[in-house]
Amino acid sequence: MADGQDRPDSLDRLNARLLCFARERDWEQFHSPKNLAMALAGEAGELLEHFQWLTEAQSAALDGDKKRQVSHELADILLYLIRLSERLDVDLIAAAEEKILINERRYPADKVRGDARRADEYPD
Amino acid sequence: MADGQDRPDSLDRLNARLLCFARERDWEQFHSPKNLAMALAGEAGELLEHFQWLTEAQSAALDGDKKRQVSHELADILLYLIRLSERLDVDLIAAAEEKILINERRYPADKVRGDARRADEYPD
Amino acid sequence: MADGQDRPDSLDRLNARLLCFARERDWEQFHSPKNLAMALAGEAGELLEHFQWLTEAQSAALDGDKKRQVSHELADILLYLIRLSERLDVDLIAAAEEKILINERRYPADKVRGDARRADEYPD
Amino acid sequence: MADGQDRPDSLDRLNARLLCFARERDWEQFHSPKNLAMALAGEAGELLEHFQWLTEAQSAALDGDKKRQVSHELADILLYLIRLSERLDVDLIAAAEEKILINERRYPADKVRGDARRADEYPD
Repeated sequence: MADGQDRPDSLDRLNARLLCFARERDWEQFHSPKNLAMALAGEAGELLEHFQWLTEAQSAALDGDKKRQVSHELADILLYLIRLSERLDVDLIAAAEEKILINERRYPADKVRGDARRADEYPD
Repeated sequence: MADGQDRPDSLDRLNARLLCFARERDWEQFHSPKNLAMALAGEAGELLEHFQWLTEAQSAALDGDKKRQVSHELADILLYLIRLSERLDVDLIAAAEEKILINERRYPADKVRGDARRADEYPD
Repeated sequence: MADGQDRPDSLDRLNARLLCFARERDWEQFHSPKNLAMALAGEAGELLEHFQWLTEAQSAALDGDKKRQVSHELADILLYLIRLSERLDVDLIAAAEEKILINERRYPADKVRGDARRADEYPD
Repeated sequence: MADGQDRPDSLDRLNARLLCFARERDWEQFHSPKNLAMALAGEAGELLEHFQWLTEAQSAALDGDKKRQVSHELADILLYLIRLSERLDVDLIAAAEEKILINERRYPADKVRGDARRADEYPD
């Protein structure tokens, strides 16, 4: 994920810290991709719980305390995402850029403007 | 998320592209935090489906085709994570760094080495 | 889950069919509780995807085709729930009845009327 | 979900209790299908967290305390599943029976014995 700069990219810095964190605790043995995918999905479930009884408008106007809790759920998801990418040897940023290109082709702006159906729901 | 360099951080670049992508399609109206949290969790569910019948060892040895599919699920999760952070005005990298500090305090290496129980399962 | 009647309860009937289905395919080897929990959560993710861009009102007024798709996601979740209970030797109905009693104590009607905060968010 | 017996089916009994529970607390206002789907997926995430660091073998040999915790997660999922079916006017048992028939056609025992790939991964 290096971008050819002197200072490493933020995701690379986090990746290095997480590797160190896992090794110091001898936790790499638990960090199979299967297990990390479960942990990530578990955190996504915790994220949902913050929003499940809120209206959409309320979800966009969290108070400070709630916002901090939610930011920690987002952080947990990012941390597992970075760990999982490391274990699978996936370049997360490159994958994201590739996926944006795919989405741009799949959802042409002219065709889908203001309409959020899934790609497979658009008539050909 | 800028890091004071000439070249913006990779997450900032992705964030700018995603904002543009959503605006061109008039999709910001659908992107409440509540809805984005659901979309993220939906992608986490798709990630699980790739691993659910694999052993842990198999999950660490994906073939090229499967690895590419999984990398796209990871990308989807990252993209929704970035969108959600943008809508909530959360600095994702700062939150991740804060969460690592919390985890370092919560799981002292000496106490938890080789043991992956959850924090609330450790006797005081 | 039997209820002392001649005709077995619906969940018992489904459980027997699912056991047979798995055995005929030699799929019991894949049905560890860990794997079944992943499969269940994957189906819950698919359920979310049907609702993520709908308003709450739209989610309560699905058309026939969408409703049938959603009913199959609900079915998938139930089927994995039954399989998982079987593998763990959990009486699902008894657990549900026990959990309702816990919820009745945790959320006294007088205290929580019209307020859906989580139990741990109520001041003592 | 009635099965033509004097004694109602267990799911019908739970459904009636849950309706009463929600009405006494004036919580039906929060129980849109969208919100209930989120709550269900949140509980599925909690279920995952119990299993994420266990081996498959460990997941099949939970101790009594852990088993009780897991049984409550399964209960929570069932309760939201019942509520969601009620709000969508879906007959959960009929949907499950229909889905089993679909699965029997999609995965013929002769073709898939001992092989758990997803249906879309089987060559025609």
